[in-house]
Amino acid sequence: MRHLTRDMKKRIVILGGGFAGVYVARELERLARGRDDFDITLVSQENYFVFQPMLPEVISGTIGLVDVVSPLRRLLTRTDIHVREIEAIDTTRRMVITSPGFRPHAHEIPYDHLVVALGAVTDFRGMRGLPEHAFPFKNLGDALSLRNHVIRSLEEAAVEADDAELRRQLLTFVVAGGGFSGVEVAAELNDFVRSVARSYRTVDPNEIRVMLLHSQGRILPEMSEDLARFAEKILTKRGVEIRLNTRLSAATGIEAILGDGTRIPTRTLVSTVPAFAHPLLESLPLPKAKNGRLEVTRELNVKEWDRVWSLGDCAMVPAADGGFAPPTAQHAIREAAVVAHNIVTEIRGGKRRTFDFKGLGKMGSLGHRSAVAEIFGIRISGFLAWWMWRTIYLMKMPGWGRRLKVAVSWTLDLFLPPELVQLRVGTSRSIGREHFEPGQEVFREGDLGDRVYIIVRGEADVLKSARGEMLPVARLRAGECFGEMALLNETRRNATVRCAVPMDALSLPRSEFTLLSANLPELRSSFQKMADARNENTVVASKGS
Amino acid sequence: MRHLTRDMKKRIVILGGGFAGVYVARELERLARGRDDFDITLVSQENYFVFQPMLPEVISGTIGLVDVVSPLRRLLTRTDIHVREIEAIDTTRRMVITSPGFRPHAHEIPYDHLVVALGAVTDFRGMRGLPEHAFPFKNLGDALSLRNHVIRSLEEAAVEADDAELRRQLLTFVVAGGGFSGVEVAAELNDFVRSVARSYRTVDPNEIRVMLLHSQGRILPEMSEDLARFAEKILTKRGVEIRLNTRLSAATGIEAILGDGTRIPTRTLVSTVPAFAHPLLESLPLPKAKNGRLEVTRELNVKEWDRVWSLGDCAMVPAADGGFAPPTAQHAIREAAVVAHNIVTEIRGGKRRTFDFKGLGKMGSLGHRSAVAEIFGIRISGFLAWWMWRTIYLMKMPGWGRRLKVAVSWTLDLFLPPELVQLRVGTSRSIGREHFEPGQEVFREGDLGDRVYIIVRGEADVLKSARGEMLPVARLRAGECFGEMALLNETRRNATVRCAVPMDALSLPRSEFTLLSANLPELRSSFQKMADARNENTVVASKGS
Repeated sequence: MRHLTRDMKKRIVILGGGFAGVYVARELERLARGRDDFDITLVSQENYFVFQPMLPEVISGTIGLVDVVSPLRRLLTRTDIHVREIEAIDTTRRMVITSPGFRPHAHEIPYDHLVVALGAVTDFRGMRGLPEHAFPFKNLGDALSLRNHVIRSLEEAAVEADDAELRRQLLTFVVAGGGFSGVEVAAELNDFVRSVARSYRTVDPNEIRVMLLHSQGRILPEMSEDLARFAEKILTKRGVEIRLNTRLSAATGIEAILGDGTRIPTRTLVSTVPAFAHPLLESLPLPKAKNGRLEVTRELNVKEWDRVWSLGDCAMVPAADGGFAPPTAQHAIREAAVVAHNIVTEIRGGKRRTFDFKGLGKMGSLGHRSAVAEIFGIRISGFLAWWMWRTIYLMKMPGWGRRLKVAVSWTLDLFLPPELVQLRVGTSRSIGREHFEPGQEVFREGDLGDRVYIIVRGEADVLKSARGEMLPVARLRAGECFGEMALLNETRRNATVRCAVPMDALSLPRSEFTLLSANLPELRSSFQKMADARNENTVVASKGS
Repeated sequence: MRHLTRDMKKRIVILGGGFAGVYVARELERLARGRDDFDITLVSQENYFVFQPMLPEVISGTIGLVDVVSPLRRLLTRTDIHVREIEAIDTTRRMVITSPGFRPHAHEIPYDHLVVALGAVTDFRGMRGLPEHAFPFKNLGDALSLRNHVIRSLEEAAVEADDAELRRQLLTFVVAGGGFSGVEVAAELNDFVRSVARSYRTVDPNEIRVMLLHSQGRILPEMSEDLARFAEKILTKRGVEIRLNTRLSAATGIEAILGDGTRIPTRTLVSTVPAFAHPLLESLPLPKAKNGRLEVTRELNVKEWDRVWSLGDCAMVPAADGGFAPPTAQHAIREAAVVAHNIVTEIRGGKRRTFDFKGLGKMGSLGHRSAVAEIFGIRISGFLAWWMWRTIYLMKMPGWGRRLKVAVSWTLDLFLPPELVQLRVGTSRSIGREHFEPGQEVFREGDLGDRVYIIVRGEADVLKSARGEMLPVARLRAGECFGEMALLNETRRNATVRCAVPMDALSLPRSEFTLLSANLPELRSSFQKMADARNENTVVASKGS
């Protein structure tokens, strides 16, 4: 009997735990009250919902590190929540397949209605050196990693008092992308770094550079020109160097390379630019626009699919005025109400609604009690805009507990210095990917041997010092390894390796290499063979030179 | 001229950022005021000081996740702080060598006076399966990892509704060690898990087990028997199962194995038991007691060494009454004052002091508004002890800002539900170490292939199902790999692997294996060869059976 009732209930499965997905679930929960004629399941990568507008505040720790997120289970009390990655969507069998958890079994979730609200992802593919070295800024993990890295850079600058080149890299912070997100990140980063630097005895505030790169003639293209100019003025006054009409063309671990070839020494490069549709959409037999987003009707079902719905940043949502709805939270929330209503209409009967919200306005924080806003067509800037920004977002945060915590944090922040705890969780002894540009040293003769490298593409020269000169003794190419000698024999680097042709490499830390080579005799012997062969060549080359 | 002054100044280097090290630096800063006749350098692994007594509160998030720590730079404004690992101490050249930061150079710090305050470390070496599977609980990273793992276990239990065996493992939490630390961890863990479980629709509170194992006849050996019994009663009432006279003998990823052979299915095992002297001390030519701690005089210099001082958990500090000072914060703070005074005496002249503090009392929190305390010989338990615990520790926290934040968090905690955000920072795509006990399956035929294994020691059987039976087809031994077939050919596991003799293995996640085997042709071919050889054997074995 119970089974029968269960089978008769419609199953609505929502993919994505951002504004779009969470608000569809909230609205469905509201509509289910007293009727209970459908089950809701939400699949999310994280067990919390990120309140995106406040994410940049995590950098400075103005509000508690986790107060910018809300646990999904507290927001959605009638929804089954699966915290899993989505492996595949089978639109024929109407099934969502999630990745394994503790046990290596896939999990299948059947659906009657599917809501695709996967949002956009940061994707640096094809951008030289960015996948390896740029910090994305989309989720809480990104914000915390960036924060930790910034603090670590200050700590290292404090220790490396004599290495001017390294200090320049450590104390320069570059943000690429002058839209809302980039501007807010640059503003918070600048406030944070300049404020905490005072606690570092050996760091001179004048050594700190924060740069904002933007490809167009003015920042904040989403806003009117006068507000953008105001924002430029405020940021410049606080010490942010704004470079307009400047494109980021490549990156390495120690510099950002601009379109005109200028190299900016930095170890902290944040890129807020590329937002792509979720890669999972590619494989689906659903109609997609050129940018990879799903094509939906004004009723928000996917075109020609009656029981698949989409909204938010992963859909091209037709706007009332002809164009498409912008990817903002306020639009996602209104789209969510339409999706929820229309799904319930499919189940219970009734008239479908169309999406025709026009937007209330736009706001961007400039940090430190300043902001810009356009609300109902009125332009506001400075302290008033900042006060509105805080008030409106505070009221929009879901949950009273969270609002209270944020309000208290904001109050304490008025008279307490910013937090500067470097939060390391777990060890990250993993295989790294690195990108090098010509002329860049991978390591130097005499350095400690801390990693071994495998060239994926590109080339590098091996150089040895002799009679006060650096002489090239070998050329390394794709598929070759280097750096294993110092690790195998526990000595210092016996040569310098310098990139010759733009190079991508894998790097394996000493601990990993030691573990693997101790337990995989084949690996060790093949490394040893390679080392011996090179040593022989090197001797020949040295003699020949 | 400036150089000369600098050379005349004595250099005091403190190793360790715990109570002992930080309070020596604070006291030295106080004594330096107005005189400025010495430089202070402190080397610490983290850029913050952990207020240990409150660390268990991080599990439940009662106070902000980072409020239990204080940034060292805020506490010590005249000290040079190096956030680095210590690589070596050269007592002949009077030099501390720290590990490399961003660049692979070692850093050398010369000293005139050295203060060794490295504390104790958790060391599971030699305990079967513990290094691989037990959670230590010493620092902030440990507390956050444990918290995340507990939340992840609840999330997975919510998804894996049909797998009773897995649910039992996920919802059982075991703490080994019934001293102060173990009791506080068990109490907080129990409060947290039972409280947040309410937010999980599919988790029944009765499924949750929290166990505390203790090798002696009663918990809290540091306290009087009646307080220990009180603590046992309170914990039991709240749902903690206490097992006395029980020793943990081994662990795997899915169970805790007790001294009598009992196996408790669990994926969360916390061990607070083993505290060893810091491994760096081993290599030093300083006099050490049997337990590895440094032998010091009552004036706290290392015996027969005039300019090397030691205190806190890494030293055997003679107590006034004949024994040795216990490793607690209140003792470390008093020892610090003696060390600082005696160093300054060496520099400026004067009379040395001896350490003769006797201790004020002991307190242990039982979570949820209960505690036990012995202060000036008076025994207190329950709410009053808890109120004292909070008040005393709040007043002892360094820094007014921090105190204010903690007080506010405690107030909010009275009416807000506990935080249940799972905080993931960075990806942990690293090489794992795992321990298996006989009978335990590593993976099962038909599972998804997610990792490849390398046997370090021990043995395992390969089993295939045929005619409804599981038939052994091969025996794997140390140095052999398995699990690579499903990864190389992207299929499911074609056999079950089951541990036969207690086995330690390395495991490499699919992403790492793919990266390495794609770029190291030797690795790939040696794996392929191994797979082919085994396949041939397997065919023969299958035929033969």
